[in-house]
Order: sequence, then C-alpha cells, then structure tokens
Amino acid sequence: MSKIRIGLDLYGGDNAPVSLIQGAIFALQAQDMPDLEVCFMGGKSSDFSELTEKGLTNFSFTPASNNVTNDTKPTEVLKLKDSSIYIGCEKLKTNELGAFVSCGNTGALLSAGIFVAGRLPGIKRPSLVAALPGKNSKVRVLCDIGANADVKPEFLLDFAKQGNAFAKFLGIENPRVGLLNNGTEEEKGSSITKEAHQLLKELQGINYIGYIEAREMFGNTFDVLVTDGFTGNAVLKTMEGTAYYILDEMKQLIKTGSIKDKLGGLLIKKRLRLLKSKLDYKQYGGTFLLGVNGVLVKAHGSSDAQAVYNAIKVAYRAVKDELISKISL
Amino acid sequence: MSKIRIGLDLYGGDNAPVSLIQGAIFALQAQDMPDLEVCFMGGKSSDFSELTEKGLTNFSFTPASNNVTNDTKPTEVLKLKDSSIYIGCEKLKTNELGAFVSCGNTGALLSAGIFVAGRLPGIKRPSLVAALPGKNSKVRVLCDIGANADVKPEFLLDFAKQGNAFAKFLGIENPRVGLLNNGTEEEKGSSITKEAHQLLKELQGINYIGYIEAREMFGNTFDVLVTDGFTGNAVLKTMEGTAYYILDEMKQLIKTGSIKDKLGGLLIKKRLRLLKSKLDYKQYGGTFLLGVNGVLVKAHGSSDAQAVYNAIKVAYRAVKDELISKISL
Repeated sequence: MSKIRIGLDLYGGDNAPVSLIQGAIFALQAQDMPDLEVCFMGGKSSDFSELTEKGLTNFSFTPASNNVTNDTKPTEVLKLKDSSIYIGCEKLKTNELGAFVSCGNTGALLSAGIFVAGRLPGIKRPSLVAALPGKNSKVRVLCDIGANADVKPEFLLDFAKQGNAFAKFLGIENPRVGLLNNGTEEEKGSSITKEAHQLLKELQGINYIGYIEAREMFGNTFDVLVTDGFTGNAVLKTMEGTAYYILDEMKQLIKTGSIKDKLGGLLIKKRLRLLKSKLDYKQYGGTFLLGVNGVLVKAHGSSDAQAVYNAIKVAYRAVKDELISKISL
Repeated sequence: MSKIRIGLDLYGGDNAPVSLIQGAIFALQAQDMPDLEVCFMGGKSSDFSELTEKGLTNFSFTPASNNVTNDTKPTEVLKLKDSSIYIGCEKLKTNELGAFVSCGNTGALLSAGIFVAGRLPGIKRPSLVAALPGKNSKVRVLCDIGANADVKPEFLLDFAKQGNAFAKFLGIENPRVGLLNNGTEEEKGSSITKEAHQLLKELQGINYIGYIEAREMFGNTFDVLVTDGFTGNAVLKTMEGTAYYILDEMKQLIKTGSIKDKLGGLLIKKRLRLLKSKLDYKQYGGTFLLGVNGVLVKAHGSSDAQAVYNAIKVAYRAVKDELISKISL
C-alpha cells in the first residue's frame, strides 16, 4: 500500500512540540487512516520515543532548525533554508510530502508555500481559504482571507478556482461562487471588483452567481465568496469581533441585569459559547493555502493535540481526494 | 434670533411624505430647538396644512420634482436639476441651508453632495461617516462606510480628518484615530494602507494611534477607525449579518432546543433584540456625508417620523456645533 505522507512542522505553535507529537499519535492510532505516514519536520530520535513505545512505526523525521519565530518576517524565512517550514515546503515541491501542516508563523508559511513549494501551473496567486459556518449548519467557503492584501482583477479568478475546488472537497456540489461587493447592482463596486465581475462571468467551469453583499455572509445565497485578502481578513475578524462582543454583552447582562435577564443568561450561556465557537473559523480544521504545489494547511497557533489531529485528518483527506488537481479546472 | 435652517427631502424614503411631515412636526414642537426652521424640498401649500393647523410657522418649502427613485444611478441625479435632492444640495452650497436631510437614494445623494454642494476647500474626497456601538455603550466612528470604493492613500487622510471632527462632535475628546489593517505589525497591510500609515503619522492635529484590526471593532482601543469605502461597507454589513445570524440561531434554539434552552431563549429574547438594534448603525440618527459644503445627513430609507425627528435633531446639533468648520483642521 502506498503511503499518504503528511508533513508536520514540529516547531510551530504555542504548544509545540508536545501537541504535535500527541496529535500525531492520535492520527496514527486512528482506524480510518491506515496508509498515513506522519513525517515530522524537525526533532531527533529521542523526541519520538513515545510513538515507538506505543508500537507506532508509520512515521519519520527530518532534522530541521527551530529558527522561525512569531517575529520572523515573511521574506526572512526564504533565507532560513534549514528551518522546519522551509524544508516542509521543499518536500511539498518534490512530492515527497502530499501535505504539510504547520501551526507556526502564518506569514512565513505563506511565503515559503508560494516561493518554495511554488505555484500550480496557470495560477498567478495562491489564496488562504477558510470554511465558515452558515445557517442550518451549512458550511461555506471564504477566500482569500489574508494571503494577498493587494490584488489585480485576474487574481480573483484564481481565488474563485481555489474556493470552488475547496467547496467541492467539502462535499458541496456545483458550488455557487459569488464575488463580495459593496452592492449587488451592476454599477456598484471598486474598479477591481467591476473588472473581476466581467472576467468571472466568462470563466468556464465555475458556477458564478455574481455580486454578494457582506450582510448575506450567513445566508443561503452562495457557497463560495471570493474577495481580496485585505477585505476577506477584515470580514473574518469582524465576525469574530462581533461574536465576542455579543457574548460579552450577555455576560454583562448576567452580572447586572434583572433577575429575569440573569436567569435567561445563565440558561443560555453554554449555547452562546457554542455559537461563538461555531463562528470561529479556526475550529474548522485549519485554513488551506491553495494554489501551491501540494496541500498546505495552516493550523491555529494555539492548537492542542486534538486540533493537530483534526488538521492532519483534513490534510489526509485532501490528499486522498486529490483536492489540488481539482483547482486547475 | 437667526435661524438654523434644516432642509428636508420631502420625497425620499419608503414612508415619504408622511414620515417627513410628521417628523418635522415633532422637531418644530420640541422645546430645545427654538431657532429651528424646517425647509422642505418639494411639496405644495396644501401638503403642510397640518403644520399650519398646529400653529407651527417655522417652516418653508421649495417646489421640486419627485423624480429620483431607488433605481436612479448616482450620476443621473446631476441631470435632474429640478429634483428635491439636487435642489437641497444646491441650497447647501449657497448656504441657504445649514444642513440637508434625506431618506432617499444614497448613491444619488452622495453624487449630488459631492458635485452639487461641492467639496470643502482642501478636501479631495468626502466620506460617509457612521457612529457605531462599542463596549460599555461607548460610541465610536467608522469612515468611510461606502462613499469611495476606490481610494488613494491621501484620501484616507481626508477620512481621518472627517472622522476626527465627527468624533469630537459626538463628545469624544482627543479622539484616538486608527487605520483598519490586516495586522498591527509595520510590515502588514496593502500598498494603500502602508502608504497612508506613513502619511497619517505626519498629519498634524490628529491623534493617530496606528493600525487596528477588525476584531478590535468593539474594543476600547480606538475612537475613529479609518478605511476605504469598500472595506468599511463590508465590515459594517458583516456586523449586521453576524448579529442577524446570532439572533436567528437563538430563535431556532427557542423552537427546537431543550426546555432549558427554550426557557433561557424566551427570557433573553428581548435583550437580544435590543443588542441587535444596538449593532444597527442606522439607529444612530443617520450617517453623515462629511467633506462637502454643509451638513449632509443620509437617514435610512425606512425611517419613520421618529427617525426623521432624530435625523433633524442631529443635523441641527451639527450646525450649532459648527461640525463642518472642524473638519479643516
């Protein structure tokens, strides 16, 4: 049986390396990934004694330096050729890895993904793609959420292809792809969205449905929402900020409200927390940088072993489903 | 006593002209605006018989055509010189009016504001400015929320001046002015925000505090948040969409949850609705188009008499406080 080789950045994240080793153990013990091989980027033999003790053999490691910090600038990583992020992306390029998962510095990972793993043929700009919650627990896709702060209209076509492939990967058939705009009328938009709108209408293989306003973010009017990385980032963080604000207001209510308010607040507290976590895109198994050679997953910096396990699992599925080959239509 | 002359677009909005006449009656009957004169743009004598019957005399009207609809394109209004919006903006330019309030077509009003009322000296781009809720009921300012989908870095300086003046008008001393960005680190940003960031650092008379991320939207880290009209619009509508989503989820909870959830949901229902309305920037007496000659207030299209009264009141206060003169630092 040929292996599905998933690279794991041993040095990225607040809980590294423990969370990564534990997450890998969960994944290797799981019944549903028999052909998984976890390839740690970083570490030495003794770091993995727990795996050996548990009789797990489907892993390997490549020595690497732990020299990318949260302060490392995106371009700096390109000089740190011995870093776990650099080496992981290099192995994506050469197909030694099917996927690479990191909880480390996002900017550095994007930079190494684009310049070391390299772009897919025909793709001008990779994008960060996230799964978001919607009404009736329907998942939808937002891209770019932050890889490209500056865009040209044609980049948005690439994001549409990437978001479309990701939505299909999530099980959405014939995804409805919309373009985020400041209005739905034809004359509305920035010079970039107006031009992209015309280009998207002509794009083959995409079910383009036109402009979408941000207030429809949770509605059932689209499956993939395409935007530049600056606006996508602002939208995502506004969702997060609004959810926190509402939860905070509820907390205040419980503290300072009438007895009726307090009681209601207490009864509903757990549910509100659930809602908040539903709004948190980071719960959805990490975000993908799509458009590069191979599956590149950015898991959250604060990932615990369970989150690392989720990220490995989603990366594994993406390799199995040949997500990457579906981007080039 | 010299009059504070507030123009009122008799034909704009879903409830025109009734809501406008009733709103004006409330304003003219109010004790705290003795020097108010309401100048209706549009109408004929018989339309105002109720005001005369009530003994109200501090009003006038200028005949105008009711020819701007929701479908009128922004530039079209410039040809509709007999329209209530065009005439209102013309009277702003000549200082016959201190302020002009309309519940009509936003795009048309912006266009007439910029090209008919005209820009203030030294201002390249007017912006739409909104007051937003924050923690502990502290109000903050977001601009531009939609007047300029395309910007140059120097336009953001104008928005900073306009937002700063508006925050002062709202009673905020030495407002902390931030620039919305996709990160707080110096190297983060689009080419536009990076350049604007440097320009804002040099801008005299503004308490510029640097980059702000959208997740801080409700925090206490800034008083004025400056951004382009495309992103501002997306952020505002995301807030709205998120609030609606949470309210909807709560409704579902009441319908389908456990008895505990249902009870909690019912107890808290009213409070959630209050929160939603708190998040609705349209509750805040309308948005201002600042940077043009005179006070230009866009009230919501669905404004009822109370909302029209609020908009007249806020416009009156803006004239009294000489908001406009505070924009040119």
